[in-house]
Amino acid sequence: MYESYWRKLGDRCSMVISGNDLMSYFSNPGNLCWFLMPELDHAIRRLHGVVRNAIADDDRFIVVGTGSTQLFHALLYALSSPNEPEPISVVAAAPFYSSYPEETEFLRSGLYKWAGDAYSFNKDGPYIEVVTSPNNPDGAIRGAVVNRKGGKLIHDLAYYWPQYTPITGRANYDVMLFTFSKATGHAGSRIGWVIVKDKEIATKMVKFIELNSIGVSKESQLRAAKILGVISDDCLNSGPNKEENFFEYGQHLMSERWEKLREVVKRNGVFSLPKYSPDYCNFSGEYTDHNPAYAWLKSKEGLNSDNLLREHKIVTRGGTKFGVGSKYTRISMLSSDDEFNLLLERLSAIKVTTNGNY
Amino acid sequence: MYESYWRKLGDRCSMVISGNDLMSYFSNPGNLCWFLMPELDHAIRRLHGVVRNAIADDDRFIVVGTGSTQLFHALLYALSSPNEPEPISVVAAAPFYSSYPEETEFLRSGLYKWAGDAYSFNKDGPYIEVVTSPNNPDGAIRGAVVNRKGGKLIHDLAYYWPQYTPITGRANYDVMLFTFSKATGHAGSRIGWVIVKDKEIATKMVKFIELNSIGVSKESQLRAAKILGVISDDCLNSGPNKEENFFEYGQHLMSERWEKLREVVKRNGVFSLPKYSPDYCNFSGEYTDHNPAYAWLKSKEGLNSDNLLREHKIVTRGGTKFGVGSKYTRISMLSSDDEFNLLLERLSAIKVTTNGNY
Repeated sequence: MYESYWRKLGDRCSMVISGNDLMSYFSNPGNLCWFLMPELDHAIRRLHGVVRNAIADDDRFIVVGTGSTQLFHALLYALSSPNEPEPISVVAAAPFYSSYPEETEFLRSGLYKWAGDAYSFNKDGPYIEVVTSPNNPDGAIRGAVVNRKGGKLIHDLAYYWPQYTPITGRANYDVMLFTFSKATGHAGSRIGWVIVKDKEIATKMVKFIELNSIGVSKESQLRAAKILGVISDDCLNSGPNKEENFFEYGQHLMSERWEKLREVVKRNGVFSLPKYSPDYCNFSGEYTDHNPAYAWLKSKEGLNSDNLLREHKIVTRGGTKFGVGSKYTRISMLSSDDEFNLLLERLSAIKVTTNGNY
Repeated sequence: MYESYWRKLGDRCSMVISGNDLMSYFSNPGNLCWFLMPELDHAIRRLHGVVRNAIADDDRFIVVGTGSTQLFHALLYALSSPNEPEPISVVAAAPFYSSYPEETEFLRSGLYKWAGDAYSFNKDGPYIEVVTSPNNPDGAIRGAVVNRKGGKLIHDLAYYWPQYTPITGRANYDVMLFTFSKATGHAGSRIGWVIVKDKEIATKMVKFIELNSIGVSKESQLRAAKILGVISDDCLNSGPNKEENFFEYGQHLMSERWEKLREVVKRNGVFSLPKYSPDYCNFSGEYTDHNPAYAWLKSKEGLNSDNLLREHKIVTRGGTKFGVGSKYTRISMLSSDDEFNLLLERLSAIKVTTNGNY
């Protein structure tokens, strides 16, 4: 979706890598996260400072991963303990990111196990709650739900960037998860990072990544550093040559898409969408709308939304995968322009081409 | 170690990546391994064809990973089954790669468990045997040891390249593991690949990588494709401008290092080294020596070799980590020139600076 923006920037984001560059396993042997490139470390802390979406001061540890998915696994490992009598429960409030259950369960770890919807979790003892805010799939701004002793929180802030949501404050949680793919659109690079307060947790995460993949692609790290750096430069540029920075661009684009989608959804009358109120955004310096990365559609008549849309050649991810009913379904708002326009077209056609049963 | 070779090649191995390149999750949506870049797929198959070290014809599947470590995990997942009453045993003949036990055990998976030395494994039922050849740590050419019904084999061929060992035939195993880091020295890119015959195993491996990291860095894949391509070009170049290709260079360098090491070890009389006989190398077209990536030292007097060397400021990895006694220890032969020369110097000094007790 953001490709044309990056194309427009041309050489400013290009990088050249020679055959003899980046050969060693090590990026920064003296650092706790020895495989994190100093350039990326710097670019991440600087960008959070510029956007003011999270505290990433020097007393926090940054651990880089092969996308935020690898870091989610690293966190499960770091927040669990081999000395506990049973696996620690992992919960998230429904609707939750559809991959959390399978990612938690697929290796049948004795360290942690998926325990479902945080709203219905009532087991005593330690647990891990994943708090995704803005939430995937429904864009809601969220806090922890369980709030009991022994709870450990993972704050997944993948979508806490100005194009998706007003930046209302600098997040300051123990563990904050971010990903390059959602921040800038560079999903192919597989770069994610965690900002973590506790040294022991950071150390265990590094251990996980050593044992899982002995570090993270340096080519990707260097490229992410470059691109995040250009974004920060542009955000800080207040000179006469100031151009639209990446987040302004993204915000306009997402706003436009949401406006179009709401119009179509309203017109055909089959679905409803969540409502969000504008908030003051510290980054933009004005009230802005929530423009989530996904549209969370609900069938007004309680039909299976995923099936209904598939019949009209719209591929979505049904509500049951997110721990709720099939009347809900998730549509990506991050597709290419062509795909998004096709979505609008097909969505518009639902009412027109059907007689009462769509 | 190979850095100066790659520097010499200059721009031939350079690559430029623009800000709008490589943005999508997908590399080849129609392919079973949808995150494998076609350029890398092609470069891998071509290089194995040129070196003749493994059969990588089009009927084999290639799965790329974040280094061979991620692929080792993917293989444990792919070769195990959630329907078995107990975790499948994972074994390797001692001395075995020191990370296998911890990588297998650290998540306390219910799918697989480390069962130690293949030589002493006598449990009935299914098992996975890792066969590393040439072996890490001792450079031995190996075959499977257990050879019982229900056995599944992982052939780790990370060191089956001409600079380390004569290429005596095209390996044709069910599952063959390779890594960019040992083939060319580019450890920082974290690229490994598996050549696999069975579609179901390949499918499960892809599933693992989806759930573990949603694919593999495209920047690294593209760079690996470029570098492997240049190696193949040079190996195939028989023209008048023919220069030393990478494997010839590596073979000479490793040969030289081994000669120097053997001399020092012989002179000081404290340790012995494994003996290897030259073999006919199909790649070189002549008899060549084994020049393993690691030197496997044995203390002649049965002392703790790792401790002894540490006292002389030589950091090694002791035999117990490889499942054998402490009289053995492993030294890397892949260090930089400076480090290698320092190693020789310190190793030479052991005899000189000590009186009977080193």
